[in-house]
Order: sequence, then C-alpha cells, then structure tokens
Amino acid sequence: MDLTTTDGAALEKSEGQAKERYGDLNRRNLQLDMTRGKPSPEQLDLSEEILTAVGPGEWRGEDGTDYRNYGIVAGIPEAKAFFAAYMDVTPEEIIVGGNSSLTMMYDAMAGAVLFGLPGGDGPWREQTGVKVLCPVPGYDRHFAVCERLGIEMIPVEMTDDGPDMDAVESLVANDPGIKGIWCVPKYSNPTGIVYSDGVTERLAAMETAAADFRIFWDNAYAVHHLGSGPARVMNALATCKAAGNPDRALMFGSTSKMTLAGAGVAMMAASSTNIADATKKISFATIGPDKINQLRHVRFFGDQDGILAHMAKQAALIAPKFAAVEAALEKNLAGKGIATWTSPEGGYFVSVDVVDGCAAEIVRLADEAGVKLTPAGATYPYGRDPRDRNIRLAPTMPSVEEIEQAMEVFCACVELACVRKLKESAA
Amino acid sequence: MDLTTTDGAALEKSEGQAKERYGDLNRRNLQLDMTRGKPSPEQLDLSEEILTAVGPGEWRGEDGTDYRNYGIVAGIPEAKAFFAAYMDVTPEEIIVGGNSSLTMMYDAMAGAVLFGLPGGDGPWREQTGVKVLCPVPGYDRHFAVCERLGIEMIPVEMTDDGPDMDAVESLVANDPGIKGIWCVPKYSNPTGIVYSDGVTERLAAMETAAADFRIFWDNAYAVHHLGSGPARVMNALATCKAAGNPDRALMFGSTSKMTLAGAGVAMMAASSTNIADATKKISFATIGPDKINQLRHVRFFGDQDGILAHMAKQAALIAPKFAAVEAALEKNLAGKGIATWTSPEGGYFVSVDVVDGCAAEIVRLADEAGVKLTPAGATYPYGRDPRDRNIRLAPTMPSVEEIEQAMEVFCACVELACVRKLKESAA
Repeated sequence: MDLTTTDGAALEKSEGQAKERYGDLNRRNLQLDMTRGKPSPEQLDLSEEILTAVGPGEWRGEDGTDYRNYGIVAGIPEAKAFFAAYMDVTPEEIIVGGNSSLTMMYDAMAGAVLFGLPGGDGPWREQTGVKVLCPVPGYDRHFAVCERLGIEMIPVEMTDDGPDMDAVESLVANDPGIKGIWCVPKYSNPTGIVYSDGVTERLAAMETAAADFRIFWDNAYAVHHLGSGPARVMNALATCKAAGNPDRALMFGSTSKMTLAGAGVAMMAASSTNIADATKKISFATIGPDKINQLRHVRFFGDQDGILAHMAKQAALIAPKFAAVEAALEKNLAGKGIATWTSPEGGYFVSVDVVDGCAAEIVRLADEAGVKLTPAGATYPYGRDPRDRNIRLAPTMPSVEEIEQAMEVFCACVELACVRKLKESAA
Repeated sequence: MDLTTTDGAALEKSEGQAKERYGDLNRRNLQLDMTRGKPSPEQLDLSEEILTAVGPGEWRGEDGTDYRNYGIVAGIPEAKAFFAAYMDVTPEEIIVGGNSSLTMMYDAMAGAVLFGLPGGDGPWREQTGVKVLCPVPGYDRHFAVCERLGIEMIPVEMTDDGPDMDAVESLVANDPGIKGIWCVPKYSNPTGIVYSDGVTERLAAMETAAADFRIFWDNAYAVHHLGSGPARVMNALATCKAAGNPDRALMFGSTSKMTLAGAGVAMMAASSTNIADATKKISFATIGPDKINQLRHVRFFGDQDGILAHMAKQAALIAPKFAAVEAALEKNLAGKGIATWTSPEGGYFVSVDVVDGCAAEIVRLADEAGVKLTPAGATYPYGRDPRDRNIRLAPTMPSVEEIEQAMEVFCACVELACVRKLKESAA
C-alpha cells in the first residue's frame, strides 16, 4: 500500500501499527551501531599476516636501502611501483605516504590554501570567494575539510552516473573562485554510484574559469566490490591528460579498507608537476613516511592479483551484510512510497531517501531505540540536508544478525516518522 | 702554534703543508658522509624485536579495543600513559601520533597560521609581522618550517646554558609579533648545550607581548646521552604552569632515534587546553594514527627502565664515534687558534666554529675530497651564517674508521681554508 496516496483513516491505522511495532522494538534494549564505514573484525582478520610481513633482518629494499632509517619522502620504490600499478599511473606519478588518505587530501587542500597549486595565481588564502563543488549526498569528512579551511561548498546533485554535469560545467565555466570538485568515483559515499565514462570525460575536458581547478578524485573503493568484481571507472589522470588538462586530477587511494584500517598506506597519484609540488610541500613537514609499513604492504599483497584475491575475500564477508540491509528494506518498506534506497555493487554504504522532513526524526527515534545511525544531514555540506531526507547506513561493521535487528528498528522508525509527516501534511 | 698570531712566513709554510696534506687526502678517493643525524645500522639493530612486538592476534588494547581498526585520534591509552611518563606529564597532556615529530611541529605552527592558538587573537595569517626566535646555531628543519610558513626568524645567540635570555626577554616583551621560540633543550642541535634551570625558568616566566606566545620545546634528545646517563632539564610544561603561563610550552618528543628512525612514534605534550586545540585540528585531517605501531613501541620498551636500558646500548655504540671526532680535532687543530668545538655529552652532533669567513670554503674543500658535510649556513635561519664560521658534524651514521678518515680530511680542510684566510687578512 502506497502510504503517500492513502486516505486519512488508513494513515491513522498505519500510525497505530507503526507506533506499536516501534514500542515493541524499543523494549528490546538494543545497542547497535551503523554509523561509520569501519571494516569488521573478520575483515581485519584477513590481513593478520601483514603483521609479520617484515620481520627482523627483512627490512632492506631491492636496491639494498635500509628502510628502518630516515628518508625517502615520497615513498619507497617498491611501494611506488606497486601502488602505481594499482592506481594505473607511472611510479613518477605517485606519492606513497602514511596511514591516512584523508591526511593527504587535507594536506593537498591546506597546501593550496597556504601556498597555492601549480598553474594557479598563488595561495588560495590570498584570494576571495574560493569554493569547491560537492556532489550530494557525499562524504562528511570531505565537507569537514572544506569547512575547516574556510572554503565555501556548493552542493551539486548526484545523478545515476555521477554529478549533474550540466550544473558542474556551467558553474566552473563562470566562477574563477570555484577551485575544485570532490569526487568518489566508484561506489560513491554514500550512494554507491559509479561515475560513467561520459561524466569522467566531461570533468576532464570542461572549461574552468580557475586555472588551478582540481578534481579531488577520492577512489577509496577502487577494488571494494560486493562479489562481482570491481566496476570500471576511467582513470581520471589519463582522461585529464588526453583532454589537455594534465594537472587537473589529484587521485587518492588507501589500503585502509583493504588491510588494517588504522595501519594502512595512503597514496596520491597525479601529474609529475603536481607530484613535484606535493613532494616539496611534504618535505617541510616530514623526513619520510613509515617505510617499513609500506614494505609490509607490498610483501603482503605480492602482486596486483594478490589485491584482487584479497578483495574477493572481503566481498564474501560483507556482501551478506548488504543483502541483509536490502532484504529488510524490501520486506518492510517496498511499495509504501515513503523511502527509496540504493543497491550498491560495492563500497561501504547504503543511502536511503525518505519523505522530506523525516530524516532527523528517524535518526532520533532509532537512537532512542538503541540503534545509532549517522546523523541526518551528515551527507551534506555544513551538515544541512535541505530536504532532511537522506540517511546513510553503514553495514560492514555489525554482524548479519545485528544488521537484521538494527534494520527492523530502522524500518519501523522510517514508517512511524513518515506516516506522521504524511498525516501532518494531509491535515 | 697559534696560527692567528704567527707571522707571514710561518703562515706561508703552514699553507704549503696543509695544501700538500689536503692533496694527499684528495687522492684517496674517499666517499664519506657526515651530513645528517641518522642512526647507524648497528643502532637500528637494537630494535629488531619491535618488528615482531605485535603479532597476529596481539592487537587488542588493555580495554579490549581492536587497534587494527579506525579511530582514537590522539593515540591509544597505553601509548599515552607510557609516553606521558616519558615526557613527565599526565595522559591528558599528551597526543601520541604518527612517525614524525617534525610533522607535529609543522602542524602546530601551520595550525597557528591557519587557525590560531588558544589565548591568541586568531589566525597568524591575519596578523602582520609574525616572528619566531631562533637560537643559533640551531636545527635547519625548524628554520625551514618557519621560512615555508612565512614566519620571520630572529636569531638569538646561544650561550653555554641556553639562549641569551637577556636578549630573549627584551625582544618578547616589546614585540607582540614575536609568537614563539624554538628550543632543543637537551644536547641542543648542533651545539650539545643543555638548558640550565635558570634559562628554563626565565623562558617560562618572562613577560611576552604576544598572548599566544609558545615555546616550541623539541626535546628530541631527552635520553640520548653518550654514556653518563641523561642530563637533567626542567620540565618546560610544569615550569610554565608554576610561572602562571600554563599554555606557553609545546613539548615534542619522538622515538625515531630510539627505535627505528623511519618507523617510530612522535608525541606532543602540552596543557590540556593546547592538547584539546591540537586534537581538534588533527581530527579534520585524520581518523587516527597507526595504533599498531604505537602498541609495538609500548610492548617493545615495556617500561621506563626499558627506555633507559635501551638508550644505554645506543650510547655504547655512538660514544666511540664522538670520541673519534674529538680525538681528531684535538690532534689536528688544538692550540692552532683556528677552530673551537663542542664536546657534547649527548645528542647527535658536534658543532665546530672556525675562523670567520671559512665555513663554506671548508665544506667545499671537503666535498671535493669526497667528504660530504652539512652545508655551511644550515645551522642558521635562511641558511645564512653571518660570520660563515659554523659547521655541524654528524658522527652517528658512519663507522669509527670512516669517521677517522673523514675527520682527517675535515681537519686538513679547516687548516687549509683558515690559513689562507689568515694570510689574506694579514696581507
């Protein structure tokens, strides 16, 4: 029954049922958490051997360098070669760093603010009206970086194959203050959308009023599929080069959701001009990354097939969790007209859109019933979802059983809040 | 024979001898490097067991937390407790981070530029005439951070027990643009000087025109003695608290020269106000440090006595190298009036002052003879030693035999360059 087209009496009845169901669930005293995209312990268990991948006496590089000592600011040659292959660039086009790609993205943007970027007119801090485009819904930590650095965010709607490129092209062509765009091109956070070739090509080729415009290409889920192999996304750097804009793409990657989330290796791939610029910036702030941990990663994976084999194991662990989310949504909310949701083929999230004005209330109700959800609005710049309708679910960390319980609560909250809103609107 | 008071003919003879000696050494085709303060392979060998300190299944914290996963931005409780004891602060007064204390210092200063510091009038970037005092000779990477961030550096002379405090007090009292001072309080880089209690107390208590004045207290060599146990330096944080300036000290430490130089753990200790401010800043740029590597360090050392026992082994390895430097300087240059040098009781460097105007030429001559030295001027802001007389020697990395060879060359270069300069002056 589509609740959006039903009559007042039926809504009344639905609200009663939903209230009762919510009350029952509330009395279970659950304590569940679906807030963050964290790998589960079972996923982390897949990488236990990385802890012993570099033992005593095993710390020499291929050229004999002692990786225990200082130096090598842009990453050890083995890691550069290995992750260059992973990112589909040359070893001259990559920096392999510490344990956090968020840090590399923050540093790239903070570096632009403080010192500027190749091709630009100096530090962004000396310019007014600096802005970055933010496809929405998107990743809260990207938005937090911009907000922190005083960079204005302009939301752009996501379509089924990437950001609304008509809007993007029109914005960047006319405003020299628009310096970049955040992109999670594969299994986007939280929508699971995969950028089409057409979108990538338009991003690469579009005219930008800013000479130092950058695509912040956070390919966090490059190989993080749910069992059918990684989706194909064009290489942003190669596409930008082909379009005559070689310095436009900064591509980020990370092993945090491949090996150990807290002890991974992060990387940035870009034109040799951008890499030289970033390397210079980094060299003031460090004498070198943890080279031993880089070596652990190269040895643990062995080769590119090693990555794929490893990620297939990850998929086998998390696919049932996404299936449990999907099943609960189908069973409880299908056909009711109050919610739509994504069915991602990879990544870490399911994105749910509910009746306008209900997301915050649903998160509140769920919290009251012991199920923690990502705060409503988190997927929008400044934490403000203008329609208050998007909720991000993160199914990887809890067990299937916990997800089933949490989703029962979630769906009851969606129904209760939306029915109430519909009643209110009908009145 | 004191060459500075000798006559022209004697100088002529000396130059001839020095030239011949230098020529002989030049023909040996040496390839030696005394540029950077890197630990030797033998020092690194002392920490081989850290590579296996956290094996499979051993990654849980005392409270059961899985340290393989994301989170805990200011460091794991075990590491905070352990390094708080090391830094003589409470666990609430420390952040334990990644592998580089230079990064923490850079971030502290860059964060002040971008966002300001507690007690101040906002971001330094919005203020004019921001300056930092730099005791000289000092550490080139400290100076590079300031130069990079556009912070003007004001050199202050070092005395035998720390910076010239009369000069420091007078400068900071009158110029609100002076925001801080770099200090390496124990076995200072490069002079080996240990700050006296009087100096520390004056730094803590002095009136500063800037409300957000900070002591950047880089205690890099806190336990890095040469065999007689660590020298005592006052705790800057406690001293500042006692003087009524609790937020003045930012104390930095690192295990880079204790365990593995590239894979250590860095820390910042400060008032809880400063720690809260720094934690907030960090939280935009990372989801957490490498907690596994922090755990490795806590387990490897075991307790504070473990640190001391470990550093006694380090001392046993490097003390003979410092002795070889001292012996060569004594043998070749004592009594000649052309050079003075430090005899440090810890740290990583020997500082040599030669006849004014000769340092750059000595480094050039040594390089020509196959001995790489830290560039002349590196120990001064902007790389400019106004008297061109200071040279930093780094004896830890080469073997004793290599040091003996390198020092023979160095001393020959000192003599040749200085005699020539004296001849020139006499003419």
